[in-house]
Amino acid sequence: MMKLYFGPGACSFVPHVGIEAIKAATGEEIETQTVKLHKGEQQTPEYLALNPLGQVPLLVVDGKPLNQIVAICDYLDRRFPQAGLLPADSWQRAQAMSLFAWMNNTVHPTFTHIFRPSKFATGEAAQADVKSTAVAAFRECLERIQKRAQEAGPFLLGDKLSFVDAYALTFLRWGGLGGIDPASLPGYQAYVARVAAQPAVAAAMAREGINLDTYKAK
Amino acid sequence: MMKLYFGPGACSFVPHVGIEAIKAATGEEIETQTVKLHKGEQQTPEYLALNPLGQVPLLVVDGKPLNQIVAICDYLDRRFPQAGLLPADSWQRAQAMSLFAWMNNTVHPTFTHIFRPSKFATGEAAQADVKSTAVAAFRECLERIQKRAQEAGPFLLGDKLSFVDAYALTFLRWGGLGGIDPASLPGYQAYVARVAAQPAVAAAMAREGINLDTYKAK
Ligand SMILES: N[C@@H](CCC(=O)N[C@@H](CS)C(=O)NCC(=O)O)C(=O)O
Ligand SMILES: N[C@@H](CCC(=O)N[C@@H](CS)C(=O)NCC(=O)O)C(=O)O
Repeated sequence: MMKLYFGPGACSFVPHVGIEAIKAATGEEIETQTVKLHKGEQQTPEYLALNPLGQVPLLVVDGKPLNQIVAICDYLDRRFPQAGLLPADSWQRAQAMSLFAWMNNTVHPTFTHIFRPSKFATGEAAQADVKSTAVAAFRECLERIQKRAQEAGPFLLGDKLSFVDAYALTFLRWGGLGGIDPASLPGYQAYVARVAAQPAVAAAMAREGINLDTYKAK
Repeated sequence: MMKLYFGPGACSFVPHVGIEAIKAATGEEIETQTVKLHKGEQQTPEYLALNPLGQVPLLVVDGKPLNQIVAICDYLDRRFPQAGLLPADSWQRAQAMSLFAWMNNTVHPTFTHIFRPSKFATGEAAQADVKSTAVAAFRECLERIQKRAQEAGPFLLGDKLSFVDAYALTFLRWGGLGGIDPASLPGYQAYVARVAAQPAVAAAMAREGINLDTYKAK
């Protein structure tokens, strides 16, 4: 018995796409449970008992909790290799994990500075500085991903949809919320449109009630 | 042919301990190459050709580069399982990867705010705010690790030395540089003394020319 806890639009989208791909490839149904982050559901005593970090995603397997995107996705892939969510070849897999880890330890935390600068500084002016510094750094990250998407194709790792594509889609959505116009990254935008058209991705987006249209021109 | 590029005292200590443990367990000798970060050797054209991110660690395997701690360590463990650097059981391994990923995406980046606040804000006052906010957050991370070390034992994952122990040792050393007195975390300090006494750890520390004594009382 497995269950994935996710927050609509959050980074939990990455394993969420994974479980849709697993269902399509193997028939295995993994339950899902919405955690409304804006309502603070990640801070209830029940949730904190499962994940003391108070974050999504969380995968519960036979009653035992596992947190951290990279660990959850690596586990899902090892358990359901038929879904092809990470490469089977050991060197290609290492390169995929490298990209995945960089997204997780660099790109994702950079966005957190935009979304919640109060985690990183106390003063109001300092928080504004943190946020604008992070917008520039996040844009650089997106440009790096765009370059890789243009060199590879149709997906970041080549022929097959992978966790890193779901992460890349999330970053472009987040960028829009942070004031980065996706039209200013046309190669990235075209690549993400391909990703969003994949059935597993479309299914996860539909369940989360999200779309790609996060940017509002000022 | 494999070669690990590391910076003395940097996060590359984590795979560095790994290659010493691999040598002890299998006889396999992995070459090492020092990168003097304070001299900017990570920014030479030759190095950037291998790692465009300009960071250590970097593992070169038959001429092909691999960056990111988590990817390098996962690859080394899969290639040399005899060294036992990550658990073989799939659920235990998932839990180990969860801790490893959290160290890599949360604890490590929190220290970067202390060490190099100029990455996160432009103004001088804002940088001081970023730094002091990060010292408090880093201390919370160390307390979380201390709690786990006290619950487990003798190492974080139980009986066997793992990559996460090398990371934990690095964090305590870094904490000292950031003004956190290790004596204020006695459980952590005792655990790290055990880790440092392990032959693979001692060998990597000797090659890097580092010790545990980084804190200077004011
Ligand atoms: N290091 C975690 C990060 C998870 C994370 O950032 N989750 C965010 C959503 S994207 C969250 O749950 N935020 C809620 C909160 O912090 O209150 C991982 O890799 O899984
Ligand atoms: N995300 C990278 C981080 C590597 C990193 O932070 N390396 C630091 C040393 S601890 C570095 O090379 N810094 C040199 C620089 O940034 O100039 C990983 O997980 O491998």
